[in-house]
Amino acid sequence: MTGIKTTGQKKMMFFSGRAHPSLAEEVAGHLGVSVVPTKAFDFANGEIYVRFQESARGADCFLMQSHTAPINKWIMEQLIMVDALKRASARSITVIVPFYGYARQDKKHRGREPISARLIADLLKTAGADRILTVDLHTDQIQGFFDGPVDHLFALPVLTDYVGGKVDRSKLTVVSPDAGRVRVADRWCDRLGAPLAIVHKRRDPDVANQVTVHEVVGDVRGRVCVLVDDMVDTGGTICAAADALFANGAEDVIVAATHGVLSGPAADRLKNSKVSEFIFTNTLPTPSEVDVDKIKVLSMAPTIARAVREVFEDGSVTSLFDEQA
Amino acid sequence: MTGIKTTGQKKMMFFSGRAHPSLAEEVAGHLGVSVVPTKAFDFANGEIYVRFQESARGADCFLMQSHTAPINKWIMEQLIMVDALKRASARSITVIVPFYGYARQDKKHRGREPISARLIADLLKTAGADRILTVDLHTDQIQGFFDGPVDHLFALPVLTDYVGGKVDRSKLTVVSPDAGRVRVADRWCDRLGAPLAIVHKRRDPDVANQVTVHEVVGDVRGRVCVLVDDMVDTGGTICAAADALFANGAEDVIVAATHGVLSGPAADRLKNSKVSEFIFTNTLPTPSEVDVDKIKVLSMAPTIARAVREVFEDGSVTSLFDEQA
Amino acid sequence: MTGIKTTGQKKMMFFSGRAHPSLAEEVAGHLGVSVVPTKAFDFANGEIYVRFQESARGADCFLMQSHTAPINKWIMEQLIMVDALKRASARSITVIVPFYGYARQDKKHRGREPISARLIADLLKTAGADRILTVDLHTDQIQGFFDGPVDHLFALPVLTDYVGGKVDRSKLTVVSPDAGRVRVADRWCDRLGAPLAIVHKRRDPDVANQVTVHEVVGDVRGRVCVLVDDMVDTGGTICAAADALFANGAEDVIVAATHGVLSGPAADRLKNSKVSEFIFTNTLPTPSEVDVDKIKVLSMAPTIARAVREVFEDGSVTSLFDEQA
Amino acid sequence: MTGIKTTGQKKMMFFSGRAHPSLAEEVAGHLGVSVVPTKAFDFANGEIYVRFQESARGADCFLMQSHTAPINKWIMEQLIMVDALKRASARSITVIVPFYGYARQDKKHRGREPISARLIADLLKTAGADRILTVDLHTDQIQGFFDGPVDHLFALPVLTDYVGGKVDRSKLTVVSPDAGRVRVADRWCDRLGAPLAIVHKRRDPDVANQVTVHEVVGDVRGRVCVLVDDMVDTGGTICAAADALFANGAEDVIVAATHGVLSGPAADRLKNSKVSEFIFTNTLPTPSEVDVDKIKVLSMAPTIARAVREVFEDGSVTSLFDEQA
Amino acid sequence: MTGIKTTGQKKMMFFSGRAHPSLAEEVAGHLGVSVVPTKAFDFANGEIYVRFQESARGADCFLMQSHTAPINKWIMEQLIMVDALKRASARSITVIVPFYGYARQDKKHRGREPISARLIADLLKTAGADRILTVDLHTDQIQGFFDGPVDHLFALPVLTDYVGGKVDRSKLTVVSPDAGRVRVADRWCDRLGAPLAIVHKRRDPDVANQVTVHEVVGDVRGRVCVLVDDMVDTGGTICAAADALFANGAEDVIVAATHGVLSGPAADRLKNSKVSEFIFTNTLPTPSEVDVDKIKVLSMAPTIARAVREVFEDGSVTSLFDEQA
Amino acid sequence: MTGIKTTGQKKMMFFSGRAHPSLAEEVAGHLGVSVVPTKAFDFANGEIYVRFQESARGADCFLMQSHTAPINKWIMEQLIMVDALKRASARSITVIVPFYGYARQDKKHRGREPISARLIADLLKTAGADRILTVDLHTDQIQGFFDGPVDHLFALPVLTDYVGGKVDRSKLTVVSPDAGRVRVADRWCDRLGAPLAIVHKRRDPDVANQVTVHEVVGDVRGRVCVLVDDMVDTGGTICAAADALFANGAEDVIVAATHGVLSGPAADRLKNSKVSEFIFTNTLPTPSEVDVDKIKVLSMAPTIARAVREVFEDGSVTSLFDEQA
Repeated sequence: MTGIKTTGQKKMMFFSGRAHPSLAEEVAGHLGVSVVPTKAFDFANGEIYVRFQESARGADCFLMQSHTAPINKWIMEQLIMVDALKRASARSITVIVPFYGYARQDKKHRGREPISARLIADLLKTAGADRILTVDLHTDQIQGFFDGPVDHLFALPVLTDYVGGKVDRSKLTVVSPDAGRVRVADRWCDRLGAPLAIVHKRRDPDVANQVTVHEVVGDVRGRVCVLVDDMVDTGGTICAAADALFANGAEDVIVAATHGVLSGPAADRLKNSKVSEFIFTNTLPTPSEVDVDKIKVLSMAPTIARAVREVFEDGSVTSLFDEQA
Repeated sequence: MTGIKTTGQKKMMFFSGRAHPSLAEEVAGHLGVSVVPTKAFDFANGEIYVRFQESARGADCFLMQSHTAPINKWIMEQLIMVDALKRASARSITVIVPFYGYARQDKKHRGREPISARLIADLLKTAGADRILTVDLHTDQIQGFFDGPVDHLFALPVLTDYVGGKVDRSKLTVVSPDAGRVRVADRWCDRLGAPLAIVHKRRDPDVANQVTVHEVVGDVRGRVCVLVDDMVDTGGTICAAADALFANGAEDVIVAATHGVLSGPAADRLKNSKVSEFIFTNTLPTPSEVDVDKIKVLSMAPTIARAVREVFEDGSVTSLFDEQA
Repeated sequence: MTGIKTTGQKKMMFFSGRAHPSLAEEVAGHLGVSVVPTKAFDFANGEIYVRFQESARGADCFLMQSHTAPINKWIMEQLIMVDALKRASARSITVIVPFYGYARQDKKHRGREPISARLIADLLKTAGADRILTVDLHTDQIQGFFDGPVDHLFALPVLTDYVGGKVDRSKLTVVSPDAGRVRVADRWCDRLGAPLAIVHKRRDPDVANQVTVHEVVGDVRGRVCVLVDDMVDTGGTICAAADALFANGAEDVIVAATHGVLSGPAADRLKNSKVSEFIFTNTLPTPSEVDVDKIKVLSMAPTIARAVREVFEDGSVTSLFDEQA
Repeated sequence: MTGIKTTGQKKMMFFSGRAHPSLAEEVAGHLGVSVVPTKAFDFANGEIYVRFQESARGADCFLMQSHTAPINKWIMEQLIMVDALKRASARSITVIVPFYGYARQDKKHRGREPISARLIADLLKTAGADRILTVDLHTDQIQGFFDGPVDHLFALPVLTDYVGGKVDRSKLTVVSPDAGRVRVADRWCDRLGAPLAIVHKRRDPDVANQVTVHEVVGDVRGRVCVLVDDMVDTGGTICAAADALFANGAEDVIVAATHGVLSGPAADRLKNSKVSEFIFTNTLPTPSEVDVDKIKVLSMAPTIARAVREVFEDGSVTSLFDEQA
Repeated sequence: MTGIKTTGQKKMMFFSGRAHPSLAEEVAGHLGVSVVPTKAFDFANGEIYVRFQESARGADCFLMQSHTAPINKWIMEQLIMVDALKRASARSITVIVPFYGYARQDKKHRGREPISARLIADLLKTAGADRILTVDLHTDQIQGFFDGPVDHLFALPVLTDYVGGKVDRSKLTVVSPDAGRVRVADRWCDRLGAPLAIVHKRRDPDVANQVTVHEVVGDVRGRVCVLVDDMVDTGGTICAAADALFANGAEDVIVAATHGVLSGPAADRLKNSKVSEFIFTNTLPTPSEVDVDKIKVLSMAPTIARAVREVFEDGSVTSLFDEQA
Repeated sequence: MTGIKTTGQKKMMFFSGRAHPSLAEEVAGHLGVSVVPTKAFDFANGEIYVRFQESARGADCFLMQSHTAPINKWIMEQLIMVDALKRASARSITVIVPFYGYARQDKKHRGREPISARLIADLLKTAGADRILTVDLHTDQIQGFFDGPVDHLFALPVLTDYVGGKVDRSKLTVVSPDAGRVRVADRWCDRLGAPLAIVHKRRDPDVANQVTVHEVVGDVRGRVCVLVDDMVDTGGTICAAADALFANGAEDVIVAATHGVLSGPAADRLKNSKVSEFIFTNTLPTPSEVDVDKIKVLSMAPTIARAVREVFEDGSVTSLFDEQA
């Protein structure tokens, strides 16, 4: 045969945007690599410049960016970085999105709305992403928005291990803050063997103009309630639910959610709430204005690092979550 | 200028596969057109042959096929028909899918599963479909699986008008048969001003091996309960939920769902159930083995025909549903 | 350099749909592997569920499905399985289609027909197939319908070795059952050094209304005729051709074709025919109602297994067929 | 509503490359339009420059180029012109290819060959073509190579009308010059009610080294034979077939083919042949070195013009050929 | 024929993002329409919500967004709006980008950089844009980054009419601030009949460490110099060039550029400069911190409105610029 | 696990079209491989036939073709060869285009022109190219026309090493022949430390009808001028520029350009010019009619070979050009 034959090699490289550098460093540490040195800055008019300092040719590239504020800027930076990797002859590009932006816009509620969560998936694909690795999507269907593999990690083991090891399980009740999030609470119940309750917003039939009341369905009197959700954004829903639980006789309320978005009035609401503890993971950086005394942040870095390693070594990500496998 | 100029014309044509001809005839009747004569048959080895008897060149083509049994055959027939329209120079192709097959496979529950609902959307696109017109998708997110416009119709007005006009509203309670379908029940409550209850499957904490019990959340004693869902397939969930309602003192139970799939053991289950009436729409043909005495079938043909007309005339489909608009 | 380097590895995995499990087992045996354990079943309404029991991440996946009856179901199952492999991060997906469905619909005979053979190629591509490995396509041009590599295997060596080793070559005449299939007969002639004859259907010029007669072109009196084609479906053409040969004084007639579709009236026609032997390969399962006494089924499994191995090991599939190379 | 509404208009424009201007003028004349003035020339290094002199915005553009010698240049010119129309906001682009280049490379005969006929279809699509309008493709399957509508015109009516009106039909025999082109001859037989014969190349079994002889199958003695094919390129096959017919006692031989490629030795072969008349259509310009005395060129311009008109006016091209419809 | 035929209608609708509403109002005014009422706001975490208040079905939609600061946000908003229009069944979507962001990143200067200007074109295409209408791209080649029509408008007539009507032409010299922008200055010279000069940055050969000096090439002593460029961003290059001109004896210096980006230190630099007048167009809003006394802003709204009208009415945009046509 | 695991291998193969075989042989020699034996010829009507004589399955294929005259033929041959490699299961296809055809048509100067340089990129992509390796593109932006990696090599080091080693640097002035090519001259100045001059074509203000004069900007009297450009095509611009330099007192003029296209009148112009030496690289074959005495051809083969090796071995092409890195 005419040509040259050599033994194939695989190379893994880990890149990060500027949105959440501490998580990138932590994941890289677990992987035993350094984040690839990268020049990234804003021009005066806000355009982003990016250049990687090492050759990515032929490498399996993992590029982490969490979609935190200013969210549109960090999404654009990730797209630009993917473009740069594609044009630099990367062998494959896996985008790691610990928090997937615009996930709540996953359907048209009414006519003439966008489906922005699908758009994000298409933009990543167009830029050159081959695979998405993400944590606790707002709805599971978003996996189907991307035309390629999506490795979907769960914070449930990390969160339930912490809560289960801290609270007297015999007193624990899992509460969904909303009728639409009962499936998340279900998984908590299964894992902790705890009963379920629901805070249900409905229009007060006795009052006009659609005043809504928070009804508590299920028994919470004297119980330690853990309110669970995928994310806490402004904190309005979750704090109102907590109030309803206390009003119905709950002994204590803690809140557990994967993504601590904590934007706008969240800092004040958390501070003023009677909730004894807020538990999040570090998929997003904690905003500086948030009073951190009541907040416990658990790390997803070990989970993400193990998933990256499985992806690179062609192992099974599913096996990381036997309860889900 | 060199060339020929003429006034533009628009032509609408309505086609149908062989899955549910009576609905096609009914929609065509409301539109004031005939279904385009079409030669369609199976070769001895099961391959489908299709040929349209009239030129479709330049026409806005609407092609209806409901994904009833044998479901894979009818999906393939629809794809083949779309291909034929594309190659026949149709100006646009809108596929009407009153019941969208594989809608329940809209996510990966575990590793190495397909997302078949996305696949169906991609196959329709590849064959040549420009737009999907469908009724009550299993989850709203499926709209985002198609790379193009999806006109999503609701059976809610048709179903609630019937139920509301028949039952004493002061005695009515809306019931979700499952924690995962509470959103559907919510919309019923809003429209009928009725209270909500939920039948919740959970593991019995007192019995080992994951025996599940059906708990009724909310007050149903002496009430006329309407159990609501998007579809009834084998009838297992819905009949068990009805039993639980009667066991908790419900005076009567009726069932309302958009899609009466009614496959496998459904015929027996419906016959043996104490439910006084099952209400479906005609998005699917009623299987012949089902005892129709307890079944009321409402027609979606007027709604579909109005939507087709709005699409053809560039009107607003959203406006058909002001409560959703 | 920042990152991790390891020696690359290649992994081959062999999957099968439910259409023709015995051929899959046989091919796997020749490869020295097991078919990957797979959960596949039908829901009550006919929707197919699939899940692979082992991780396919990074593997070169070969997925066999022969398009036998019920043909639309098995095509859909293959598409769904390809989707599952794509989303499970397979490195490459080669679909093995021993019999390629809808191959006869490879052109528009008249306006407003589909080109279903092209559609099948596009559907496989959309689902995620990278390469097609198939046997004796109805026309060679179908290779061009797929946007990617097609490895096209020939049953000719297997069939001619059998016939040549069994019949007195000095008495043998190769016969095409139809003017459109002469090229296949040509290749038989070249390989067996036998003369050619043709059975030609034409309108009887002496009788009105397009009565067709079967004229035999070439000398068949006292000869052992082997009627050759790519497939035998209902058996109508081939049995009528055999009758014409006997009527023209043939001493014996045998039939050889790659694909024994044998649908509809084929069982009866084969039973009632004076043909002494029907020779097929096992690209399709033999329908249970067919009397197998007159049928000889030769295995394509060794050929397919060698091709799979060449594909996996980056060898030459062309070299398997030096007479074609 | 906010915005502006006006009555829609349609505009047809007819463009041509430089390959075969007389046919373009003729078609334009039948359409009652002028060919759009176009600046097209070669730069010194052979790069082609193109600019249309009138705005094509919003027009249904028909762009004719026949793939005559120098074939690669004219194909590139057509691609460049399509690109220019696309960027000039044409509403639709129909490429008219009276002779489709590379049509004979429609399959892989052996490994590592291209399928150039598919490539041509893909290149046209990529440049921006929406539809192909062509005449007598080498094989019908090429229609399936293009991902969009292909309007396929037939020269059969034009050719058979001429031959049928000139020759005593009772003496006429239709002859295929090759076993692979019998289908074309079949259609002539059906239309003219004439018997069929075949010239069949095969290896002489009595002579080593694969000497091939031209056997005449069917009765041609004393007959007027019309040898039919889709194209005559170098004339080798057709002239050898004619010789065989004369050697077998044919009274006269005429040749009829849609495309008179007539390249290389064709001029000499036609001149030296005993064939009394060669009949072609004007899908290709007749090379200047060809002696035109024995050649009759029939015009496809009326047929192409009618098809263009039907396409523009959304009529039926199929209806142009009722015998094919 | 089966179906419905009606006269076609065309509908034009004009939409705008939130980046530069005054320009949108002005263009709409020239068109005689209102900007379509649109709900657009930011959620607390920065995600953008968009909904159009009128049906866009079947309309030719023009969506204006200028890429001003915060640039990544407004690009994302435009993508989201395009997605919403696509899903709302717009007939066509033309994005109007008076200033095209990231245009300066139109090539890789070094390895591992992105080509962000191409990425922007691809993102717009992916979201659903059919055509781009833009003003004075940084380099003309960016037109080729978009796979579809780009209507490229020029501010040159607006700018030169103003300058030519104000300055004594016999004293005017056109100056390029940089060797890379001479082509722009060329066009000014041709239009105003003025001589050319260049300010050329080069390393001082007499000083180490790459100190660059601004050499003035051409005669500027006693001349009124107009420094021209496509954009002024931070003002560094242009103010240094002006200093060099004054240092070489220029009587007066004015600056003319299409896009007044004016970010970062631009406000101070313009204020401190000896340049007598800065002339921009309103493709971008003027930042509030800029001292507007020395700035003249000319409107591109009439030009954009005329182009929109030509696009909608299928006229010629080229004809707007006869000097370019 | 079920399946087969082996160590991965990489295979490099080097192919060439027929445009410039000597360069292919030279590059292959530097790589230590043979050009893969390939059958390529023209059919009588000009269609190109290609077949590779060795299996390319799984190989990283490099396919060189320089776009010399007849340029459209060689572009088509390259596309056909890429198609053949794609269908032959190549693992990756890198097209090497030492001279990229149609590069000067990289924008629309006026309405209704093509952007042929983008078209070429799209055609290569469609045929199956994964990466382009090219030398000195006419404008850097062409990199962005290809949707994938472009490895862009520079002849600057080769050319400046030759010129710098031959001419007394203290007497050297670098001259741009045109205002639009100053950037190229800039890079020469930086590398050789020489001053810059420009030959500027402008309309003579004293003569009507747009007579243009060649003004020399900068000091060239008594200097040895090196006129630099990316290519010399007909030689008109460069020879006129040289005349202007001599007219302004230059002692000597040499010309250096990467691509010696040298078409049409170039042979005569070079012969008649007073330029003492023309320096090109061998990216294109030197036309036979060109008098080679005054021409020096430097080889790019070592540079191309090193880049191919870096691409194959996943090294850094950027590192080949540290001054650019």
